[in-house]
Amino acid sequence: MSTQVNPDPAARTDVHRAVAREPDPEQEAVEAGLVDAVVASFDACRDPRLKELMVSLARHLHAFLRETRPTEDEWGAAIRFLTRAGRLTDDVRQEFILLSDVLGASTQTVNVNHTAHAGATEATVLGPFFVEDAPHVALGGDLSSGAPGEPCWVEGTVTGTDGTPLAGARIDVWEADEDGRYDVQYDAARRAARGHLFTDGDGGYRFWALTPTPYPIPDDGPVGQLLRAVGRSPLRAAHLHFRVAHEGARTLVTHLFPEGDPIGRDDSVFGVKESLVKHFARQPAGTSTPDGRVVEGTWSRVRFDLVLAPAGA
Amino acid sequence: MSTQVNPDPAARTDVHRAVAREPDPEQEAVEAGLVDAVVASFDACRDPRLKELMVSLARHLHAFLRETRPTEDEWGAAIRFLTRAGRLTDDVRQEFILLSDVLGASTQTVNVNHTAHAGATEATVLGPFFVEDAPHVALGGDLSSGAPGEPCWVEGTVTGTDGTPLAGARIDVWEADEDGRYDVQYDAARRAARGHLFTDGDGGYRFWALTPTPYPIPDDGPVGQLLRAVGRSPLRAAHLHFRVAHEGARTLVTHLFPEGDPIGRDDSVFGVKESLVKHFARQPAGTSTPDGRVVEGTWSRVRFDLVLAPAGA
Repeated sequence: MSTQVNPDPAARTDVHRAVAREPDPEQEAVEAGLVDAVVASFDACRDPRLKELMVSLARHLHAFLRETRPTEDEWGAAIRFLTRAGRLTDDVRQEFILLSDVLGASTQTVNVNHTAHAGATEATVLGPFFVEDAPHVALGGDLSSGAPGEPCWVEGTVTGTDGTPLAGARIDVWEADEDGRYDVQYDAARRAARGHLFTDGDGGYRFWALTPTPYPIPDDGPVGQLLRAVGRSPLRAAHLHFRVAHEGARTLVTHLFPEGDPIGRDDSVFGVKESLVKHFARQPAGTSTPDGRVVEGTWSRVRFDLVLAPAGA
Repeated sequence: MSTQVNPDPAARTDVHRAVAREPDPEQEAVEAGLVDAVVASFDACRDPRLKELMVSLARHLHAFLRETRPTEDEWGAAIRFLTRAGRLTDDVRQEFILLSDVLGASTQTVNVNHTAHAGATEATVLGPFFVEDAPHVALGGDLSSGAPGEPCWVEGTVTGTDGTPLAGARIDVWEADEDGRYDVQYDAARRAARGHLFTDGDGGYRFWALTPTPYPIPDDGPVGQLLRAVGRSPLRAAHLHFRVAHEGARTLVTHLFPEGDPIGRDDSVFGVKESLVKHFARQPAGTSTPDGRVVEGTWSRVRFDLVLAPAGA
């Protein structure tokens, strides 16, 4: 990260303004007067929440414009970017969600809705591939359903922040296969590398899945062009998705990331949180498995203990 | 305008935060850490201007998210809004420009590019209806070309900020007809209520046009829905467009607004500036005209003196 970055956006803006242009009271009055007029245009809005959102949007949008002072060509390029994104977006491709993802807005929305709670497992983005009807898998079962990839044994517990085991918690798990695609990307009705199971009486769980691998977000549209223009990779850090629900607990949507992934913190959607990175122990071919399953070739195993905050926390 | 509005966005944000939520260092670290990561993701960008734009965009976008703390449903609604705007946008309908217009972003972009210059006529938005090949009209001629509306005599001078008359300045003028439509909205090849002329040796100009009337921006899409939801009108204040160019002067793009327009400052795209509002004198039927033209019915007349800043000012 650049050492130039001042973590206080307001302070940085002031510095930028002071350096970039001389104060001009007449110009200042024109620009600030417009911001006031735009804010005032929402005075008659009867929905107080919508009003709050629009006023804040207007203030931040105009702060951006006054700070960066885009040329008319630059602002036109932004309009053309949105236009191209709109043309590409349909039922199976959502360029605006990708844009939100690569700007970290999706993850920040998760953050502000799942406020940190001491001791609870951190949340991260749900992503576009969750489905409600994932098949049920018995404890210790294999949710890969034949999807290609290296077998991975996942086990752990689900507890409350006070350490109480949560029996019967529902765990949904889904992931891309080793070709970087989710089941529904092949066929909306396909279900593989996806399932749900319930914790046992001690809050324990265990299942076979696939060792997760990095894959690119769709990068053949304007978002991909943007990533290339700024020198960023479209790759997502390897991960398994988890959604964990239990009565009386705050539902947790999170990822499990393998330690040592070369993508790591450069995840294109900023979904990685250090506390969610775990050691996946690589197992040579022929190693005996926890449940006696015979695996051809290598496999891996990982422990992921999940801690749910109380509901309403 | 609300008396609650603090004109300093930074100060208002601080107040909002202090009131809306208690400080939580752990949560603060998660949210601020994400902003740092997004900013750092642009470190490798080789285009310094693109980097500046993206870093500022990221900071302001995240400041908006952290201030308003949208629910995941609200953020989803924003994505769906952009998706609908994208579906509607094509060669003749540009919903993203309308969005930029109604948020005042188009006018602010004009402001930051046409900085105030003491004594010069203020600039405002170009709009989507300028064309390069407007027909030439002689001084005192009629540029309405049969478009429906009340005749309007427009006269004035073009000078520099030092008062020097600018002879041979090119003035382009275009406007909607009394049905609220520009020529090109009927047919891309149509030219009416549009023309260009040149100032005489004393910097003087005069022409017949139409008395401008208010008209709505297209409001059958998501931008129109937004305006209705916040209680805003889609109407633009009545106006004539001007573009004035002269060697050695900064080209001026502006509007002329009639005094007493009921839309006035509630212009849906924030294009109105007080200095551009002029008295259009209503003339009863039968009044003699400046050039002896016989007009059936009422007409109006207005004086609009245009002052151009020096080039590079």
